Amino acid sequence: MDIKNYIASIPGFPKEGIIFRDITPILQDPQALRYVTDTFVDFVKKTDADFVIGPEARGFLFGVPVALECNLGFAPIRKPGKLPRESISVKYGLEYGEDELCMHTDAIKPGQKVVVIDDLLATGGTTEAAIQLVEQMGGKVVGCGFVIELDDLHGRDKIGDIPVCSLAHYAGE
Amino acid sequence: MDIKNYIASIPGFPKEGIIFRDITPILQDPQALRYVTDTFVDFVKKTDADFVIGPEARGFLFGVPVALECNLGFAPIRKPGKLPRESISVKYGLEYGEDELCMHTDAIKPGQKVVVIDDLLATGGTTEAAIQLVEQMGGKVVGCGFVIELDDLHGRDKIGDIPVCSLAHYAGE
Repeated sequence: MDIKNYIASIPGFPKEGIIFRDITPILQDPQALRYVTDTFVDFVKKTDADFVIGPEARGFLFGVPVALECNLGFAPIRKPGKLPRESISVKYGLEYGEDELCMHTDAIKPGQKVVVIDDLLATGGTTEAAIQLVEQMGGKVVGCGFVIELDDLHGRDKIGDIPVCSLAHYAGE
Repeated sequence: MDIKNYIASIPGFPKEGIIFRDITPILQDPQALRYVTDTFVDFVKKTDADFVIGPEARGFLFGVPVALECNLGFAPIRKPGKLPRESISVKYGLEYGEDELCMHTDAIKPGQKVVVIDDLLATGGTTEAAIQLVEQMGGKVVGCGFVIELDDLHGRDKIGDIPVCSLAHYAGE
């Protein structure tokens, strides 16, 4: 399956000069959603991970099905003010702007091997923040799965030697 | 399984007088996530639905796994400014405040039978908005699944005769 057939490209969203890559057509099609999930499940199994995390909100769309099918738990990475229990946070830069991400402190147990699932790898700021959050809790990120990777933005530079699984590549304009 | 064992209650979040019911412990436990998903899948099959929708962000956590396991498509219901393609929106009141929800206009096809999955039924404002969005696109909501229902807030009054599946009931203080 060429998953790019299920990714819509919208020039000028959310602002001038950005081509937004929209993954909602994947979700609308059961075969495309199955393909993406199965590809991530195969990847997660190879990493020997024992937990899955994903950033709000689009990381939830792909991360939870993968956790379910791998019989692993999932924890959300959220914007400030959303998590009700004791949390830690890190600040990060993203493709357009700056933000802060949080996780519950009981989400990751020391020694746990974690895969990060998200819709998009752009500059890598979100993923770098996720890796820092996991490490602060004593866990280790052993894999990162993205539906889309914007190659020219060099997000992989922030991920280092951690294995990456990206299903669709775009230049990153 | 008593799913309430996987729901944390946090008094005073996000503000005084509210007891926040936190579903993240369900996600962290593979058996609890499997139980919730299977219960919703059984419900969706009984409704004869052919599509699943869920509001951002916590509706994504439970809606997509259910769509995947039912071999159905999923569309997100989002806050304004998030959907890049042609969309419709409705305003709605929620437990604390007012907001607006949007869907892509190609999400629902005329005649489609839709189930709404969300973490929480409180006053029913979000679900009422979801029903209106589906009807504006010519579809019909044939079921609503919630992890938690706050009985005293009478959200069911806004849902009418549509079948509801709620896994955990609280008074709604």
